[in-house]
Amino acid sequence: MLADKSVKGFLQETASDAPVPGGGSIAAMSGATAAALTSMVSNLTIGKKKYEAVEETMKEIRDRVDAAREQLIDLIDKDADSFNGVMACFKMPKETEEEKAARKDAIQQATKEAAQVPLEIAEKAMGLMKDIEVIVQSGNSNAVTDGAVAAMMARTAVLSALYNVKINLGGIKDEAFVKEMAQKVSELEEAAQVQEKKILEQVKLD
Amino acid sequence: MLADKSVKGFLQETASDAPVPGGGSIAAMSGATAAALTSMVSNLTIGKKKYEAVEETMKEIRDRVDAAREQLIDLIDKDADSFNGVMACFKMPKETEEEKAARKDAIQQATKEAAQVPLEIAEKAMGLMKDIEVIVQSGNSNAVTDGAVAAMMARTAVLSALYNVKINLGGIKDEAFVKEMAQKVSELEEAAQVQEKKILEQVKLD
Repeated sequence: MLADKSVKGFLQETASDAPVPGGGSIAAMSGATAAALTSMVSNLTIGKKKYEAVEETMKEIRDRVDAAREQLIDLIDKDADSFNGVMACFKMPKETEEEKAARKDAIQQATKEAAQVPLEIAEKAMGLMKDIEVIVQSGNSNAVTDGAVAAMMARTAVLSALYNVKINLGGIKDEAFVKEMAQKVSELEEAAQVQEKKILEQVKLD
Repeated sequence: MLADKSVKGFLQETASDAPVPGGGSIAAMSGATAAALTSMVSNLTIGKKKYEAVEETMKEIRDRVDAAREQLIDLIDKDADSFNGVMACFKMPKETEEEKAARKDAIQQATKEAAQVPLEIAEKAMGLMKDIEVIVQSGNSNAVTDGAVAAMMARTAVLSALYNVKINLGGIKDEAFVKEMAQKVSELEEAAQVQEKKILEQVKLD
């Protein structure tokens, strides 16, 4: 999988003229990074006398964000695969009318999938925000800036993924599908901005 | 170096209760990711008949952001090292008055370094913004969302690094140094927000 590559190698591959990994995979990686930082702050809080009162909460958060990290790491590949899926459909034969129709249907189906995967990335990254807020409020105060970075990485993951939903919606003819997805995009865009702002306002450095 | 680890392994180490890699290293990685996406958009533009007019510009951008990516990858380690440097000073002996004074001086020096490294990360990531704007305006329009993601990753890199500058400034007694750094922080914070907004306004999806 892509996350088995070195950081350097993964970024090298991103930089190349191969279209994947692209913005969608990077969104998933950004979400996984937000999850990792949230886990770190929990881990730096667990076992400390001063934070005994929130010990159980921190353990729950850690387990939840560690699971989310795994899922977001899987989504790095899933996004690249869905893009490749669309490309493969474009290469289908289009000599006969039958072939043309089959190709058109396959492209529509693959493009829906290519919109759904980044939506899943956005939802998963958005799901981290509540836990990030708690670790910023109640976690080890020495690591509060790590919580701030997690909030910004989660916001960027959500918004980046949504750009990749939107660009795919442009190619989908099923109006009901597009309408429903566009509504979700709009809600998540708003929520990510609001939630990041709310968390950063709670990060006090003095 | 940290970037030789797998993406999965690097995030695993981030998530652990070891304080590094932390938010500063993640800021550098985020900047390197922005650089990689910018390079990708250039590479997807170079050699295309439709974009012949911007071919040279795109090659210049690619070379510049590829160099910036290397530097930001180095800064992932440099930030972790500077944090470890501060920790090492705190462990210096403090029995005699002489030892106490030497330890205090060493902590001050190491903390200045630990503020300067993330400032360098912020400046380097901010330096990508102009090129990101150009690739969004004039690069391959099929990759415009990758440019948008690059802008958001660069913004998050700058702001994340600046949190790590600020938390270190709190421990520095040299008022002139603190004042000068705080001024730079404030300017970069503003610039990153403004520049991201400006770029995203230029990303049209239809």
